[in-house]
Amino acid sequence: MLRMPPPLLVSFTAGDAGAWTIDQLTPVRGETLALAARLDVLEGSGSAPAPDAVWQLRGTTSNLRYTLRKEASALAAVQEGLGRARATCAALIPIRKNDAWWALAQDERRAILEEQSRHVALGMDYLPAVARRLHHCRDIGGPFDFLTWFECAPQDASRFDDLVGALRETAEWNYVVREVDIRLSRAA
Amino acid sequence: MLRMPPPLLVSFTAGDAGAWTIDQLTPVRGETLALAARLDVLEGSGSAPAPDAVWQLRGTTSNLRYTLRKEASALAAVQEGLGRARATCAALIPIRKNDAWWALAQDERRAILEEQSRHVALGMDYLPAVARRLHHCRDIGGPFDFLTWFECAPQDASRFDDLVGALRETAEWNYVVREVDIRLSRAA
Repeated sequence: MLRMPPPLLVSFTAGDAGAWTIDQLTPVRGETLALAARLDVLEGSGSAPAPDAVWQLRGTTSNLRYTLRKEASALAAVQEGLGRARATCAALIPIRKNDAWWALAQDERRAILEEQSRHVALGMDYLPAVARRLHHCRDIGGPFDFLTWFECAPQDASRFDDLVGALRETAEWNYVVREVDIRLSRAA
Repeated sequence: MLRMPPPLLVSFTAGDAGAWTIDQLTPVRGETLALAARLDVLEGSGSAPAPDAVWQLRGTTSNLRYTLRKEASALAAVQEGLGRARATCAALIPIRKNDAWWALAQDERRAILEEQSRHVALGMDYLPAVARRLHHCRDIGGPFDFLTWFECAPQDASRFDDLVGALRETAEWNYVVREVDIRLSRAA
């Protein structure tokens, strides 16, 4: 059986404090987010709204929504967790999909995500270099549907660019109406 | 395309007030909920925690998680919405599934839910008599994973008993660790 921790609320708070320095913030599609110096990543329900924040995004980890057993097992065999000492580079990519995506049935979304766009398979090619955690926020409100957090070593950052570049060319990305690409490095 | 409204936060507050009279509250599996006279059903994010409540459960509507296009279309062709004048009976059934369920991959959960348990097909047999809305709460915390709300006319209440009875005999229900069955009628 896969290890599957209970849902974890995670807040990403941009401002003057936090363990991550924001190096670059690029609007890929739709409205951007304001620039800030640092990002604070806080886990758990104690992460209260921060009145001084430039912005704050919150999401929860969850169960698998599309991944099949054979895919989950293949991923589990090679992927590594967050917090590796060498993984001093990170990316936070908040995404919102359109109403047409959310009106699709489960089999239609799966077909676009994997059979047409190879979302899971593409990600496999970048394991274990890139570690990843997906946070859902559509059901709890807020301006995005997903917040994906990636970590890798500096020498793998260009490979990470290849991955997000490939995903942005897929049929799945036709449903993305807002995307911001935020690159970070661990603050000294 | 299916009409698919955005996620809606709904709170179910048991206490002395509300449009629904609680007629019966039966623990089916695991810990029960406390008895109360009335249930208040409030939609939208304005539904603040109620300090005087006997209990309060909150969940959000969401996109389809298992339903295929052909099933969704068949359901949409016959189902009716909440709030029908003749539907003066209701049921609220909060359910929690175990960790083994949530550790399954998407195809494994779908196979148990439909190919083995015929969850969607069973429900079809009771349309349009029984109207239904599913609220998710696992990712937002709280003691249950799902809150399902049903409405029907008094003469269809015994058919509703048949439906929940059939579901409780399925393979899917082996994963249910907590369930409370609350029956209500519209307060005069």
